[in-house]
Amino acid sequence: MITGTDWFQILENPSIALPAGFSAKGVHAGLKRKRKDLGIIQCEVPASAAAVYTVNAFQAPPIKVTQESMGVENKLQAVVVNSAIANACTGERGLEDARQMRDQAADLLNIPSHLVAVASTGVIGEYLPMDRVTTGLQRLVTETDNQPAAFAEAILTTDTCTKEIAVTLEIDGKPVTIAGVAKGSGMIHPNMATMLSFITTDAKIGPDHLQRLLWQTTDETFNMITVDGDTSTNDMVLVMASGYAGHRPLTGQHPDWARFQAAFQYVCEALSKMIARDGEGATRLIQVRVEGAPSKEAARKVAKSVVGSNLVKTAVFGEDANWGRVICAAGYADPSLNPENMDIWLGPVQVVKKGMATDFREELAEQVLKQDVVEIRLDLGAGMEEAVAWGCDLTYEYVRINASYRT
Amino acid sequence: MITGTDWFQILENPSIALPAGFSAKGVHAGLKRKRKDLGIIQCEVPASAAAVYTVNAFQAPPIKVTQESMGVENKLQAVVVNSAIANACTGERGLEDARQMRDQAADLLNIPSHLVAVASTGVIGEYLPMDRVTTGLQRLVTETDNQPAAFAEAILTTDTCTKEIAVTLEIDGKPVTIAGVAKGSGMIHPNMATMLSFITTDAKIGPDHLQRLLWQTTDETFNMITVDGDTSTNDMVLVMASGYAGHRPLTGQHPDWARFQAAFQYVCEALSKMIARDGEGATRLIQVRVEGAPSKEAARKVAKSVVGSNLVKTAVFGEDANWGRVICAAGYADPSLNPENMDIWLGPVQVVKKGMATDFREELAEQVLKQDVVEIRLDLGAGMEEAVAWGCDLTYEYVRINASYRT
Repeated sequence: MITGTDWFQILENPSIALPAGFSAKGVHAGLKRKRKDLGIIQCEVPASAAAVYTVNAFQAPPIKVTQESMGVENKLQAVVVNSAIANACTGERGLEDARQMRDQAADLLNIPSHLVAVASTGVIGEYLPMDRVTTGLQRLVTETDNQPAAFAEAILTTDTCTKEIAVTLEIDGKPVTIAGVAKGSGMIHPNMATMLSFITTDAKIGPDHLQRLLWQTTDETFNMITVDGDTSTNDMVLVMASGYAGHRPLTGQHPDWARFQAAFQYVCEALSKMIARDGEGATRLIQVRVEGAPSKEAARKVAKSVVGSNLVKTAVFGEDANWGRVICAAGYADPSLNPENMDIWLGPVQVVKKGMATDFREELAEQVLKQDVVEIRLDLGAGMEEAVAWGCDLTYEYVRINASYRT
Repeated sequence: MITGTDWFQILENPSIALPAGFSAKGVHAGLKRKRKDLGIIQCEVPASAAAVYTVNAFQAPPIKVTQESMGVENKLQAVVVNSAIANACTGERGLEDARQMRDQAADLLNIPSHLVAVASTGVIGEYLPMDRVTTGLQRLVTETDNQPAAFAEAILTTDTCTKEIAVTLEIDGKPVTIAGVAKGSGMIHPNMATMLSFITTDAKIGPDHLQRLLWQTTDETFNMITVDGDTSTNDMVLVMASGYAGHRPLTGQHPDWARFQAAFQYVCEALSKMIARDGEGATRLIQVRVEGAPSKEAARKVAKSVVGSNLVKTAVFGEDANWGRVICAAGYADPSLNPENMDIWLGPVQVVKKGMATDFREELAEQVLKQDVVEIRLDLGAGMEEAVAWGCDLTYEYVRINASYRT
């Protein structure tokens, strides 16, 4: 988790079109009733690209088609995204539809198909209405101006707000911008939560280095959020780097590598937290920090277990300092732990010391639980590793949304 | 899953005092405001005993004390249970309290301590009020008559009803009875759900055979239910066999072993389903049957994933035939699966064939979802193994209960 911003700046009015070379647009193609539902990110040149995908066995056709595109040279010049229909569990026809969506966009842009990626999010098991996609693409590519806010809207499903972030830093004395946009909301769980996230940058960096950076960062950010424990068929995080910033190519040997890495992680972490905070029905962001773990893996597992526990989530919703549920969720995540070494804090209030309740003042703990961001910290007393996970509370509204999603 | 009852009978007015040699009682000791909260099961003789415990790292003191007792000779003559306070995360003092609870009961019964087991369920992190436990035990043992229904009540927490079952069958031509009682409700997840379950029988069977039978059966029954994915610190299933039925000792070689095993499994499965159906806030029992799995383990994993998915659970609550969530939950449970081999039924209605939607009539599927028991069946098309898991829908009431459990 990064909090310092002394050597990079968070930009106001962020958008994925801020890095040099990029533009983005969105239109209403008629997949949703009224709201925007089809968008595109374009780069003036073939950009270095990297991606991570859902681990769900049932990867949706757009995931497969994007993998096909990336397989050629790990470069992309455009990403086309639709919401409302996930084009998942749609068999051969779904695969054909996703390929057509890609190829039509490539034709309109007059670039090779393998420079285009596609992504879809929405209901599983329905076919894309290809006539609407086709006319929508035409309008999107040929008649619409750069309007990144419209893209941010076009990818939403049950999200209540758009999610954008942009930061700038210097590399070799030249300004570099990294920007990101995401959608989340439901079916959000580690290992590519049900979410789409697109990151653009004008940094100069090869596809291999970009891919390694993305893998590393994803484990600390996108894979550390959970809304409901359900891993979607369509998750994807995609990064494109235009190289327009003009510094020497970034590699692990570049003196500014660590700074770039940290700024990149900041962007991913910010998007992850926005997704968790806007989880279906959520009223609060829950941040669980685990320290003193015997291994990184154990730290992550315990953090995700606590933040993903329905009982912890409902306790936070009820503003109930029920630390027993926190310790219980830690206990079933890692059977090797010894409760007698464990300390727990709610915000600044220590509620558990060596596995037992402190005589904390309930009112102070409740104050913590009333915050928009609820911080739970565990020290397992079993090592030096740590991890942070993010999630949200479980509310009546989550049940309402998901008991009637399709109807 | 057993449905045939041709060679055993389900008894009306079931109780754990039906098997010969057993009695049970319950009183209000003052741990709860009004309802019964302390109970005991007694046997006239030291009974063969077997137990399985929570896999949560933070096993509560009563679990440890029961393990101490069992460790001596795997025989028990009494089990003392309290509700309201779990005596978990209570350190050395909690361990002392649990031992005292056991030893006081043993003194009152005039039997060795190691023939007494203890169990607790309720809030984590609070100490037992030992003065109330002491006076409660005195009344329970010395002043109260056999009243198994009072025991069934005394072990409840947020349960809405008592859970009892009894069956009878013949072994060597002699009548044998197996009876069970359970409490469940919240923190219910495979690997000993947050639940307590006690089974009595007058069968003649050694502790070793009883323990093996319990392990086998638990994997197919108690470990296949989930309410909220949280595995408690206090789970325990305990079996006592008095041997009063007078047949030849049961072993794997006995000609009636398979029948005894099946009747025993029926009791465990019935209790498991009662626990799932009475999950916190539940309006329906969900039964997920997975067929065509490559291994038993895969079948169980997929079944538990589907029945445990918050999105499937809310869809059932909303009577929404959202099969996409079912296939998605199967897909993240086992990344080796091929969706194109998968069929799914809601009750008798096939909704997915070879990974894609059939043109089923939505009204028929909704009829299935209105039943008190909702059956979801998946054929993975990947082998011959199968498994069944049980759970319940996720409702507003679940959120209400758990947002305000302590207050």
